[in-house]
Order: sequence, then structure tokens, then C-alpha cells
Amino acid sequence: MSETVPRPTLEAVAARAGVSRATVSRVVNGSDGVREPLAERVRQAVEELGYVPNQAARSLVTKRHDAIAVIVAEPETRVFSDPFFARQLRGISKELTAHDNQLVLLLTEGRDDHARVGRYLAGGHVDGALVFSLHIDDPLPELIQRAGLPAVFGGRPDWGGGRGGVVYVDSDNRGGARDAVRHLLGLGRSRVAHITGALDQTSAVDRLDGFRDVMVGADPGLVVEGDFTAAGGERAMRELLDHCPGLDAVFAANDLTAAGALRVLREHGRRVPDDVAVVGFDDMLPIAEQTDPPLTTVRQDIEGMGRLMARLLLRDLDRDTTADAAVGGSPSSVILPTTLVRRASA
Amino acid sequence: MSETVPRPTLEAVAARAGVSRATVSRVVNGSDGVREPLAERVRQAVEELGYVPNQAARSLVTKRHDAIAVIVAEPETRVFSDPFFARQLRGISKELTAHDNQLVLLLTEGRDDHARVGRYLAGGHVDGALVFSLHIDDPLPELIQRAGLPAVFGGRPDWGGGRGGVVYVDSDNRGGARDAVRHLLGLGRSRVAHITGALDQTSAVDRLDGFRDVMVGADPGLVVEGDFTAAGGERAMRELLDHCPGLDAVFAANDLTAAGALRVLREHGRRVPDDVAVVGFDDMLPIAEQTDPPLTTVRQDIEGMGRLMARLLLRDLDRDTTADAAVGGSPSSVILPTTLVRRASA
Repeated sequence: MSETVPRPTLEAVAARAGVSRATVSRVVNGSDGVREPLAERVRQAVEELGYVPNQAARSLVTKRHDAIAVIVAEPETRVFSDPFFARQLRGISKELTAHDNQLVLLLTEGRDDHARVGRYLAGGHVDGALVFSLHIDDPLPELIQRAGLPAVFGGRPDWGGGRGGVVYVDSDNRGGARDAVRHLLGLGRSRVAHITGALDQTSAVDRLDGFRDVMVGADPGLVVEGDFTAAGGERAMRELLDHCPGLDAVFAANDLTAAGALRVLREHGRRVPDDVAVVGFDDMLPIAEQTDPPLTTVRQDIEGMGRLMARLLLRDLDRDTTADAAVGGSPSSVILPTTLVRRASA
Repeated sequence: MSETVPRPTLEAVAARAGVSRATVSRVVNGSDGVREPLAERVRQAVEELGYVPNQAARSLVTKRHDAIAVIVAEPETRVFSDPFFARQLRGISKELTAHDNQLVLLLTEGRDDHARVGRYLAGGHVDGALVFSLHIDDPLPELIQRAGLPAVFGGRPDWGGGRGGVVYVDSDNRGGARDAVRHLLGLGRSRVAHITGALDQTSAVDRLDGFRDVMVGADPGLVVEGDFTAAGGERAMRELLDHCPGLDAVFAANDLTAAGALRVLREHGRRVPDDVAVVGFDDMLPIAEQTDPPLTTVRQDIEGMGRLMARLLLRDLDRDTTADAAVGGSPSSVILPTTLVRRASA
């Protein structure tokens, strides 16, 4: 298609710099032991000729591709419409770039494509995988294990125990939910409802558990299932107003859900927070500041989670290739704290 | 990191199915010549053991990874904030998935990372590349050529001639711009201003040329440079109102720019379209419908451009691996037509 220009060879670089092939190879692969004036001549020849080292050959030596796969277990439309993923990817991208590793985002149309993702992962194109937004029974974790790739998960995978060594980064979803509900009770509310997230994800289950920890024995009708989207929040809020018109507070499983709930409350003439107090989860900006009224919410450090996932994976890869294991012990999962951010809605 | 389960081998599949290694290999690689009952037994064993063919070995035979790199020559923050890219990726994703090819999106923090992208492309991880949003002097096209990869570009690359065989998919930016300006003149406007896009991109240059084709000899003060963002549109509109308070129409280089311009016009008490008529470019929904007033704009089929880019690349790859070249001749670039969509703003 595009006309192919002959690729400059290692030999051409050696000739240009007036050194041996071995010297060029050492400089290109970052070994020590080449004196600086010589190394500088090689670097200059590399630059002038536009030499690109043969990565396939190089990675046979280093066993590294300097590339990390990122898989969001959602259709690409969702990846681009929910700002949560953009923010997590931002953290991952910053961290990988700082370590000169390429971020390889594997997009799919849906779960049916996960087997194909598994084949790519098994094909020797990346050093490890960062995976988030897993749903129950997703085949991805097993595909990644079979590919023999190290992985870090964003959010606790739902693996019913029995599999050791899984590393994940998560927020304290259950504790954050408890804080939200306690805050509502502290405002004197007693009929507190909960719109859940997608209950095939552990983050939604954990937030529901946190709600139940505080609202022991609450009317089951006060819990309605959502799906982490604004449309789901609207639908659930309508259902709640139908069945529990006397509710005086809502804890929504994320800010998008809360934004949908706020719209429906306004439609029904309910004043927020006077009639119904609302708390979200995420502190997703600018959404949480631009709702009417601005949203009280449970903040989690989404970008920080992304950075941490990348850092844990890179550390694990360094450990594998460092003979003296000085880099540290086996990484373990991290649960990050959340904080309640007060705005006008509760 | 995650505990590694031993990967089932070709031998294990052969033992399970009670056939030779060669038979398993033929079935797995899709060769003919294995009788159906036997082939079915192999497929069942593959399924039961969860065997994943060694892609590295397989691709030595087929020379295909069934993976296509997509590179947006913008920082990842821009990729996730400008809906243009999400829409183009949607088209690409649908087409690649329909052909069971993996979409490999290579994200970067900026142009400084393009050399790393070049190394990944040269490393034998993908069969070809789809590249869009190139800026002038970007090293990517050359890196892709050096990697020996076929590529299709979204938007005409600015390669000052001399390089043959470049395939791209573009909209008729110049013709669309002419339609926009002629429409404004047809409404009886005479002081028509233009807020350009980022002038280091050919799409912006072509739209400016289309504006000049119609507004021959226009006051140079009526052209102000923008950058395809809403903030850029606001800044440019303020500058235009300062220097040319008598303007009665604005052609903005895209819908985001127009949305910014509309906000500033409202701030300054100018009625749209009564005092100032405004036309955008893209027909980016829901933006173009949600501006106040809804936007008259030049529609381009962004998702369709993405699909077409993917289709041209896959066709080129098929041609290379089809002995009789029956798939068709060398692909050539395609310029898609645009259409003016009338709403309230002009």
C-alpha cells in the first residue's frame, strides 16, 4: 500500500559510526561497557539513518516488548461514553509513558470478542495486562492466566476464592457506601433508598452491602437495581417514586446514576435536598459539580487507581527480570480509601 | 503475578482426540484434508482442554496476526474528550470485529511518544495501521513506512507530494466549506467570517481554502485561527467581534468551534441567526442538535469513514495473501461527499 523504504540495518549503522556490529548492538540495547565518545557516535548514526532496532530480535534477548495491554471488559461504545474509563486510562497512560511502555488498548464490541482478545494476549505481543470493569463469569481472567501473562485487575474480580495470587486495585466501596448512608441518616433522613449499580460487578455488590450494613432490616422495596448509567438512574428513580413515594433520601451507586435520579426528582416536583437528599459515588468531574443542585458524593481516586495498577504490574515485571530480586517482594492487592465530598444535594 | 496454569499442549489435544499431532495442527490452522468426523473430534478436544494455538508459531505460517493498530495522532486526553474520534473508532471497531480482527489502539501522551509507537509497529505485533488526525511534520507516516506496514490514513496526509501509493479516506472538506459559505451568501449575508481549525492539519487548510474560493478578496481580518475545540471557538469569536463588529455570519471549522462561538455571540447580545448566522462542520450529534439555536452544519459521515478505512486496509492485506489476486486491484484513496444540514442557526 504505502511504498516500502528499505529499512536501515545494524550493519549500516556500524559502517556510518565506524564501529563493530557488536558495539552498535550494545549501545542500542542499553548495555554498559561502551565508552561515551563511541556510544555518542553510534547514537548519532542511529539518528541520522533513522535506524529502528529489530524488536522481535531484541525481545528474544530481553523477553520484554515494553508494551502493556489494557482491556476494559465493556463494549467500545461504553468505554467512550462513560468518563470513568477515560479517567482510569489517563492514570494508566501517564504511568506507562513515564516508564516508556506502550499502552495497547484492546477494544471489543462485547464479551463475544473476549476469546479473540485472549488469542492476542497469548500471541506474545505484550508483557502483561491491566483489566477493568469485569462482569461475573467473564472468561477474560482465565484467558489471561492461560496466556501466562501477569495481570493486575481494576476492581476485585469475582473469583469465588480458590485462586491465589490475584492482584487488584480497588476502592473501599463498602466503607464508602456506609459513609454515604450514615451521612444521610445524620441529616435526619429515615426513608433512605438505594439505586444499585450493575449487580454482576463486585463494586455494585460491595456498595449494596455497605448500604445494608447501615440500613439493617430496611424495606426491600427501597432498593432498586440500576446499571451505572444515567438512563438506568432515571428508570430506577421512577420505580422508587411509584412504590415508595415517602422516601426522603437516595444513595445512588455512582454519579451518572445520581444525575439521572436528580432529573426525575425535578420532573416530579421534589426539591433536592429539602424533600429528598441525594448522594452519589465517584466524584466524577465535571458531572458532580454541574448537576442541579451540585452533588454530594463519595470520592474515589480513579486516576490514582489507574496509575497504581500500572505501577504494580511494572514492578512485578521488573522483579521477574531482576536476578537479585532487590525490587521487592510479591505485589499484593491494594484497597484505596474513599472520602465524602459535601456539595448541595445532601 | 496471577498463578500460571500450565497451558494445554498440541500433544495433549492429539492424545485426547486419539489422532496425530499433524492432524491437530491441520485442523487448528484451518487446512482442508481432514475428514469431518476426525476434525470434529479434534475440535471437541480443543474445546474441552481449552487449548489456545501458539499464535507466534501460527503467524509464521499465515504471516498474519489478525490485529490492526489504530493510532490517533493526539494525546489520549483529546482522544477521549473529542467525540469525533469515538465515532471514527466505532466505525473501525465494527468493521474489524466483523472480520474477527483485533483492534489495537495505541495511546500516547503526545508526539514525543510517536517513536515508541513506531517501535511497536516494527515489532511484528500487527498486520497494518489505521492512522488519523495527523499534524504537519508528524514522524508517524515515516515510522510506519520503515516498519514495512501497510497503512490507511484518515484525512489526507500532508506529504508535499513525491510519495506514491499513500491511501487515505477523507471528506470533501473544500467542497463542503464552499457549500457552507454559499449558503450564508444565499441568506443575504455579506460580512462572512471564518474560524479555522488547527492549521497544521490538512482538513483545516482545505476548509479555509473552500472559504476563500467563495469569499474572493475578503477582508483578511474576517479569518481567525481556531483549533477545533469549543474553547478555541470562544476565543476566536471574541477576537472577531473586537475587530469586525459588523460581521453578519460565521462559518466555523467544526461543530465544537461553532458551539463555542454561539456562546460568545449570546454573551454579547447578538441574536442567531437574526444578527449573525452560524454554520458548523461535522454534524456531530448530539452537539449539533443541542446548541442554542440548533446548528446548521456540513455533514460528513465520520463513522462511515472509519469503516471504509478498515475495509480498504483489510482488502489490501487479503490481496497480499491471495495468490491469484482475484480480490481486486491496488486500493486507492476515497473522498467522501458532504451535505449541508439545515437547522435554526443559518
